[in-house]
Amino acid sequence: MKLTVIGSAALDSIETPAASRKDILGGSSLYASISASFFSPVNLISVVGGDFPARYLRLLEKKKIGLSGLEIKEGRTFRWKARYDKDLAHARTLKTELNVFEGFRPLIPKTISRRDNLLLANIDPELQSYIFHRIKPEGIVACDTMNLWIETRRKELLKLLKKVDIFLLNDAEARQISGEKNLLNAARFLSSKGAKMIVIKKGEHGSLFFSKGLSFMAPAYMVKKVSDPTGAGDTFAGALLGYLTGTKKMSSRILRAALVYGSIMASFSVERFSAEGLLRVTPANIRKRYEHIKKLTEF
Amino acid sequence: MKLTVIGSAALDSIETPAASRKDILGGSSLYASISASFFSPVNLISVVGGDFPARYLRLLEKKKIGLSGLEIKEGRTFRWKARYDKDLAHARTLKTELNVFEGFRPLIPKTISRRDNLLLANIDPELQSYIFHRIKPEGIVACDTMNLWIETRRKELLKLLKKVDIFLLNDAEARQISGEKNLLNAARFLSSKGAKMIVIKKGEHGSLFFSKGLSFMAPAYMVKKVSDPTGAGDTFAGALLGYLTGTKKMSSRILRAALVYGSIMASFSVERFSAEGLLRVTPANIRKRYEHIKKLTEF
Repeated sequence: MKLTVIGSAALDSIETPAASRKDILGGSSLYASISASFFSPVNLISVVGGDFPARYLRLLEKKKIGLSGLEIKEGRTFRWKARYDKDLAHARTLKTELNVFEGFRPLIPKTISRRDNLLLANIDPELQSYIFHRIKPEGIVACDTMNLWIETRRKELLKLLKKVDIFLLNDAEARQISGEKNLLNAARFLSSKGAKMIVIKKGEHGSLFFSKGLSFMAPAYMVKKVSDPTGAGDTFAGALLGYLTGTKKMSSRILRAALVYGSIMASFSVERFSAEGLLRVTPANIRKRYEHIKKLTEF
Repeated sequence: MKLTVIGSAALDSIETPAASRKDILGGSSLYASISASFFSPVNLISVVGGDFPARYLRLLEKKKIGLSGLEIKEGRTFRWKARYDKDLAHARTLKTELNVFEGFRPLIPKTISRRDNLLLANIDPELQSYIFHRIKPEGIVACDTMNLWIETRRKELLKLLKKVDIFLLNDAEARQISGEKNLLNAARFLSSKGAKMIVIKKGEHGSLFFSKGLSFMAPAYMVKKVSDPTGAGDTFAGALLGYLTGTKKMSSRILRAALVYGSIMASFSVERFSAEGLLRVTPANIRKRYEHIKKLTEF
């Protein structure tokens, strides 16, 4: 079984108080694919422009990510420019250029089976929905989102969340979509809208998993230094779905491990800019942090 | 073995967006004593004025808290007036009246043994230090503090933390005392100053325990509704020390359980104003939340 990942592929320009980097590998589908590739085979569906550096494509190929669904279109790659505040807690978007994503309607290559699992990584819910209906997936489907879509595509998003198995969003977004301050109430709101399984990502405070009520609280793995939080949520979602795909089944035990692997992969991601942290990780590093966090949280 | 608790005894006036209450039972030593009393015998050392309601004394007696060290002094009880913001995350102190605490130097009653454990609940480090040197404790000693003392009694506090076994503070205070944003670095700073065991309380995000490096991450117990966060940290410290006193020894397993009981008791405390949440708890309620959080966090 494989995992199909759709979402954005971008060139990010990121400023933090410590450093600033231009046109680095970014986008929800790339973070998620690289993260998932440690656990299962991955096929990517996305689009880049002719200016997308070949060396980035080679990095994805090295991770054995299937690129037959990655369209290379005439024009410029999607770009996102942002600045983080001094706590690295909030990114302020300085500029978004949709570029080749404007009106993008991908073809689904034959290598992608409806029986594969599907991660609708963060992108316009209209595009997520389009892909969902083209693939007619029979595997596990997860959908991630962001504040922008809650604001501008609320109706589409509420329609989509009924159809998927796992709906992911962060704590601020859970509060935003529900109008509830308390996360238990926010999750109850999402359930009432038809969400089956809900993952609320709390960044450095871990994540909450709901399936008919709160059923697991996953810890975050603490790192000594955060360099760039970009893509942490995408990385988390990629590892979660990658792990579920790799194990080929879904029990409470497997789901819990998948969420913890989400935390672990996110911890590697934030330690360096772009996907550099993820790209230098080895399976042994991942295993070590998993065992460590298990020891740190058992009682 | 018993636990001796010293700290403030107060009449609080609390305003939250939902309600406001005047002259309710408060103070670090009262929250901590009531919380600890579920796990071990407790002796209290503190002071109140003649205006302290007899019904509050009866509540403490009902919990079998030894009151021979509670001085009833002519004058008014210590008072604290505060208003919480809409997230209930930050309290703004509107008024503090030291009253009978001004220059308070308690006598140590004979019922208190130096072999008992000792909790120096949050109060001026000069008073904590005075008590420490009068008792010359041979049991486990823990010391809690707050932002005010870090600001105004830094030197005294840094002297005291070397002498105690467990030093407690919250995340904001750990950042304040160390000048480090990252809590792992903040704890390393405190270790370098001679702290042996460190507990960083993160409120709704649980707590971190350090003993030569990070060694346990305790989850918080999520509640549906927070009414009044006052005393949550004192309640946490009380349960931690109460549990350690009740079990009569200290292993890694016992320490971890003690920290989780800290979270549990704090969850009961914040659900109602003052100590009302704690006072209506039963050992069965406590056990139930402990089992529940264990199930919610195992992987």
